[in-house]
This record gives sequence, structure tokens and C-alpha cells, in this order.
Amino acid sequence: MKSSLFIIKIGGNVIDNEETLSSFLENFSEIDGKKILVHGGGKIATKIGEQLGLKPNYINGRRITDDHTIDLVTMVYGGLVNKKIVAQLQQKNCNAIGLTGADANIIPAKKRPVKDIDFGWVGDINIEELKINSLELLLSADIVPVFAALTHDGEGHILNTNADTIASALSVALSKLYDVRLMYCFEKKGVLENVDDENSVIRLINKEKYQHLLQENKLFEGIIPKIENAFDAINAGVKDVLIGDAKDLLQNITSKTEGTLIK
Amino acid sequence: MKSSLFIIKIGGNVIDNEETLSSFLENFSEIDGKKILVHGGGKIATKIGEQLGLKPNYINGRRITDDHTIDLVTMVYGGLVNKKIVAQLQQKNCNAIGLTGADANIIPAKKRPVKDIDFGWVGDINIEELKINSLELLLSADIVPVFAALTHDGEGHILNTNADTIASALSVALSKLYDVRLMYCFEKKGVLENVDDENSVIRLINKEKYQHLLQENKLFEGIIPKIENAFDAINAGVKDVLIGDAKDLLQNITSKTEGTLIK
Repeated sequence: MKSSLFIIKIGGNVIDNEETLSSFLENFSEIDGKKILVHGGGKIATKIGEQLGLKPNYINGRRITDDHTIDLVTMVYGGLVNKKIVAQLQQKNCNAIGLTGADANIIPAKKRPVKDIDFGWVGDINIEELKINSLELLLSADIVPVFAALTHDGEGHILNTNADTIASALSVALSKLYDVRLMYCFEKKGVLENVDDENSVIRLINKEKYQHLLQENKLFEGIIPKIENAFDAINAGVKDVLIGDAKDLLQNITSKTEGTLIK
Repeated sequence: MKSSLFIIKIGGNVIDNEETLSSFLENFSEIDGKKILVHGGGKIATKIGEQLGLKPNYINGRRITDDHTIDLVTMVYGGLVNKKIVAQLQQKNCNAIGLTGADANIIPAKKRPVKDIDFGWVGDINIEELKINSLELLLSADIVPVFAALTHDGEGHILNTNADTIASALSVALSKLYDVRLMYCFEKKGVLENVDDENSVIRLINKEKYQHLLQENKLFEGIIPKIENAFDAINAGVKDVLIGDAKDLLQNITSKTEGTLIK
């Protein structure tokens, strides 16, 4: 039997608030067994970017990762946010190690090809290329990897990569070795039937239900890529995916009675 | 017989210039066998600090690591500089992993006690406390640790720590397991008898010679802590210490005919 591995992704709503982050890290550190944390950057990158006089660069409404922006996110996600999380986890006796996909070449990526838009230093992952040996080495030694949402192109450049995608790619690649439970923490209690009603959490979404929800236009826009990532992960071997509030999910990590379960 | 381990420290004169850094990393990646790189931050931290409107904080001529400064160096040393080096080493087929002392708790430190001056978030290392098991795990898997000059206090805070000191502490701790050769790369070809004459490199400094040089006031100020670090390291088990120009030292890494050898 494979052992369990929790892969947990947090975003701005957890990172941006010191107390929320600290309380999340407390719960995270208490999870028994193997675990990986993946984090985005939160508002702090935008704030520091503004202080540095960088103007976000958009083409057709899509954010571009230009030279300045990749340096900014490398600093803020890969340095400030990542190492603060590591130091706090160490305080809580969780033996964290802060990583990007460039470290030990764990997540090689390819700069997104230019079609209509040149997204700049953005990386797309080929799951087959992930180097899971190094991750297994760390996990076997009870070291807890903490990933900033950065990859690299093998040609000397760091690339910006969506944190949900990284969490999902790691989950798929590691499902060969572990029973992986992927958890997307976000600002809602789960996928909501009615976006204005926090009590309308849909407990279970399977493919049929998802098609139905799409047809009825019930899903708010931001959740759709998360659900698609989840289905991709499950189709590729991940045991299950939970979407919901960080606190709820982590406090009930074995029971899975909170949030939305994707199967 | 123990196997060899090279621990190489670089500072601003290598990091600040893209071409020098790239050429150094090329030489570094070509070193056969186990190796660790330790880097400082260079001028980029000062530059970004200025852009962020931070004013360096000095008391009695000593730089203070206040709240803003520790965030700055965590971003710049631990993120921007460290991850760029890692990405470039990966390009050169060197399986680098970027670390701070907080990662895997490798270098725990204590915030420097306040006596005459409160240095702020500065960490002093107790070599006995280094966690070399995790480093051995990485080195045994042919992963190449790249350290930013940061440690942590075990209470959730990153600490600023001198890069020379980190290189020396790692060397001493790892000399239990390896034949360690510690190399300090800096802007001169070695310790100079005459600071204005690059050809006056002192090839060998032992304790007698060092006392002699001190008495004659021949050493320029910046080199003294380096030499003292070197002697401390050797007294604690490090095989030898070389001080000199990055290019010279790395191109002649086995012959040791360049730079100043401290014994």
C-alpha cells in the first residue's frame, strides 16, 4: 500500500493576513505524515512592485511577466514569502525546505510559446519531466517541501507558473509513489451553488455534475480552472481533490467532511 | 578515506557583474565531486533598497538589520540572487538547490544579544547546532547546495549572517564527514604583502606569519576577519583554506598554486 501524501495549495487570502497565515501554518504543521505546501504570492508582490515603480503590464487583459516582473516575483515569492513561511514552520517543529521548480531541477518548464500574446517569462509544465526522485529523497527524510510558484526553463531563466498548476502537476507526478490528496485552499468554504451563500457548498462534484453546473452557468469564473485542474489531476492518478477554506480543510483533514470533494 | 568537499564563498565582486558571475558559475559547475556555494548579496540589495525608499541604518558606523532590511535581504539574497544562480547552474548541468539556513533547519542561529549596539536581525551561529544530516543527504545524491547568507532563530525569524562566517561554519561542521577545502573568492589575487601590488600575493600564511603581518600593519582591514575565519576553520578540522580571485582559484582547483593558502 502506498503511504498518504497531502499536497496543499494556498493563495493570497491565506498569505496576505499575518494571523491567518500563522494559524494556517499551525494547522499545516500538525498534519501527520508526508506533506507538501505550494503557495502563490498574494498582494505583497503587487505592493512591492508599486514601491519599485513597476507598472503591471497587460495585453488584452492578460498579465504579462516581463523582465522586471519575473525579478519581482522571484524576489517576493521565491525569497520573502517562501522563506518567511519556512522560518515559521521551523518554529512549529515542521522541518520545511523552501523551493522553486528550479531547485534540484524538480519542475522543469518551457517558456510559453508566443501565439496571439507573448506572456513573457511564463512557464508551462510537462508533468512527465518532473524530477520526483529529489522530492522522494526529501519526503523520505521527513523534510517538508514548500514550493513558491516558480519553475525554470533549463536555459538559465526562472519562469512564473500558476500555483494551482504546480500543485496539480506535483500531485500527478507523485501519485506514482503516494496516495495523493490534493487540497486547494481558497477564500470560500467550497464550490458554491450560489456564490452569495456560503452555506450552499456543493459537497461532491463528479463529471456529470460539473457539466450540469457549467450548462446552468452556476459557477463563478475563478473556480472553473480549479475544477478543471482537479479533474485533470484525478484522471492522471491523484486520489481525490478537496476545494475549500484552509481552516476547515486542515482541521478535518482525515474526515473530508468539509469543502467540495472532486471525484 | 573521506571524500573531498569544496566549499566556495563568493561576494559582490563576482555577483554584481553578469559576465563575471556567468563565467564563475561555468567554472564552478565543472568542479568534479562534491561542492557547496555560499554567496552574499552584492550591490543589488542596496540598489533595490534605495528604490524601495529604505535608508541604510547605521549606529556607530555599524550597519543595522532593521525590520525593513531583513525583508530586503530575504527577498534579494534568498530570492533574486539565489534563484538566479540556481537557474544558471541548472543550465550548466549542475544540480543546484538554493537554500538559506532556515531550510531544513540546516543553520540555526541566535539573534545577536544587545550589548552596546542592537544589530537587529543578525544571527550568530553555534557550529555544534548545524544540522548536517540534511546536507549529507543532498550531497550524497549529487545535489549542490547554494546558500544565501541567511539563517534563522527557530522562533520564526530569518536572520542576516555574514557569508564568510556561514562558509566557515559549514566547512567546520562538514569536516567530520569530508576533507573540506574552503575557498574565499574576493577581488584580489590573494592576501597581498603590498595592497597596491597585485603581484605581491603571499602564497602561504601560517600563524607565525600572520602575527608578523599584524605587527607590521601590513594587512588591509577587510582581509583580517577572513584570515581569522580561516584559522578558526583550520583549528576546527578544515583541511585548508584558499583566499584569492574566483577565476584563478577555480581554474586551478586541484593544484592550489594560486591565491593564498592558509594553514
